[in-house]
Amino acid sequence: MSSIRKLINDPLKVADELVEGLVEAYNGECVHVGQRSLALKNIPDNKVALLVGGGSGHEPIYHGLVGRNLADGAACGDIFAAPPPDIVLEATQAVNRGNGVLYLYGNYAGDVMNFDMGAELAEDDEGIDVRTVLIWDDVCSAPPTQKHKRRGIAGLVPIVKLAGAASQEAKTLNELEAAAKKAVLHTRSVGVSMSPGSIPATGKPTFEIDEDKIGLGMGIHGEPGVSEIPMTTADELTPMMLDLIFKDFEDDEEIEALKEGDEVLFFVNSLGSTTMMECLIALRKAKELLTAKGLKVYDVMVGPLVTCQEMAGISFSITKMDDELKRYWDAPCQSVCFSKMEGRYGG
Amino acid sequence: MSSIRKLINDPLKVADELVEGLVEAYNGECVHVGQRSLALKNIPDNKVALLVGGGSGHEPIYHGLVGRNLADGAACGDIFAAPPPDIVLEATQAVNRGNGVLYLYGNYAGDVMNFDMGAELAEDDEGIDVRTVLIWDDVCSAPPTQKHKRRGIAGLVPIVKLAGAASQEAKTLNELEAAAKKAVLHTRSVGVSMSPGSIPATGKPTFEIDEDKIGLGMGIHGEPGVSEIPMTTADELTPMMLDLIFKDFEDDEEIEALKEGDEVLFFVNSLGSTTMMECLIALRKAKELLTAKGLKVYDVMVGPLVTCQEMAGISFSITKMDDELKRYWDAPCQSVCFSKMEGRYGG
Repeated sequence: MSSIRKLINDPLKVADELVEGLVEAYNGECVHVGQRSLALKNIPDNKVALLVGGGSGHEPIYHGLVGRNLADGAACGDIFAAPPPDIVLEATQAVNRGNGVLYLYGNYAGDVMNFDMGAELAEDDEGIDVRTVLIWDDVCSAPPTQKHKRRGIAGLVPIVKLAGAASQEAKTLNELEAAAKKAVLHTRSVGVSMSPGSIPATGKPTFEIDEDKIGLGMGIHGEPGVSEIPMTTADELTPMMLDLIFKDFEDDEEIEALKEGDEVLFFVNSLGSTTMMECLIALRKAKELLTAKGLKVYDVMVGPLVTCQEMAGISFSITKMDDELKRYWDAPCQSVCFSKMEGRYGG
Repeated sequence: MSSIRKLINDPLKVADELVEGLVEAYNGECVHVGQRSLALKNIPDNKVALLVGGGSGHEPIYHGLVGRNLADGAACGDIFAAPPPDIVLEATQAVNRGNGVLYLYGNYAGDVMNFDMGAELAEDDEGIDVRTVLIWDDVCSAPPTQKHKRRGIAGLVPIVKLAGAASQEAKTLNELEAAAKKAVLHTRSVGVSMSPGSIPATGKPTFEIDEDKIGLGMGIHGEPGVSEIPMTTADELTPMMLDLIFKDFEDDEEIEALKEGDEVLFFVNSLGSTTMMECLIALRKAKELLTAKGLKVYDVMVGPLVTCQEMAGISFSITKMDDELKRYWDAPCQSVCFSKMEGRYGG
């Protein structure tokens, strides 16, 4: 028997029931669509639609990113599983307003396969124009020359936030695609993990790691990172994580290295049971190091937004800002996952 | 050795370092005050100030509730300890703009003693007019005739949100005190716990509970509740929790029972490691039961806002709304703990 006792009902129905609960959390703002999707109730005619999605079990993402100035809908898979093509199709139909639908989701093989099949169905059967932008912010999952192999992790939250604001002003699918691609290109993350989450249906851990080790660069399901290092302090770990991100900006020919005076959005994510206390202690050191490098922190996000059940670990995400991205960031947004007023802290 | 490995530095400095990190999270919007407080940078002259506070270790409260249309400042104690009187005084001085300061915090003996001493110092030495409103939303901690014995738990988040909006329009300390008292009187919570958090300095659990039991009515530090019941499902537990809140509104002579057509704000809080997945599954059942009772859910909050490290458990809070409270709720707010756009879901 597992020591993790979850407050659930039927372990095989958690994905369905959490989506039902999520629709209730939106209290009338969203509708439950088809088998396991949700969509904003009032999407304007002719809006270029933004659709996100992925496996359940990582709440409040992905489906918690549906909201005002955010995504128009989400296609939700079972726990840690990609949404099947018919669910993607149902979500696509629900958000389509005749001006195309952009799919924006984390780069995982199962998701890519199913979203692509959903897009085919939507295009062939329904004549809906679909475009896809993959999120691949995890710099530890492949070198910058092989971004198609990179995973999407916590950077997806600022990316969807930026794309959601862009979708309010985009006139065409091309425009929204370009804005989302820029948000992805400008966002890089590094994660670490100290202990696994558990699979709700079985109570089994999602991966194994020695009690005295940290998985540097580990993915949000426990995918291998760059190395396992001895457990250390927040102040020792923080520069290692930041350096991996700095180096990625340096090594990538598609974007300029971070240099003095650059403005960045900085996000500290908790993977689940890592406390806000720990996130804030890491943030304290990270801000010191970002400032020492001459970077201006445009705004900060912190919290357990991309989780894997009770997994312990954190990630840092840096988004290199420009005037366009700052305008998207400043827009207010409202959702179960992430809300903000207009503007920014200290702005 | 504890199995909880926290990402910290010196275990005895976590409270100081997390407050430093919190100030960085506010990115210039807040300043670090004295030993361990923070305050908004731009509090308008003559504003009736709102000060919150309490022990650290419960992040993102209490100090994460400083923000736009929220609290003006927070006095932060060490882990699970009340802020000492001199810290309360420093925070009071920092937020005072000559029109009085309202203290609004959870009803715990240590906090009451220290905030009262801080108030005395502020009044006697500085001539600052201080008033106190205690938060006592935990209906399981004492009967309604003995509210002075009740603890403040997760209901403090909607209460501070409502009072923060009220503080923007209050002309006098009397007006803000009345608004905060109404928010407290109208808000009732019930918590449950499945497993303890740990004390960062020692790794020791904050309390003990059998693996197959749920502590019904337990406080956020593991204070005793009304009973220990066998571990059960979300759908079985949810009505038990709601009934305790409904009964409290019925039994309390200071407020009318909840009846058909009443509007309520509903908040599902996670105490730490309980996942958003579980919160949403409980919310699904709770919405069904609230609706069956004829209540209109004005808006919903959900998330790990009042935590006790990696403690497992949830709480429900119900705020009975009226036109005044709805106006306060609809105001946007921005802070590390809780942010929202203007209005409400589905509104």
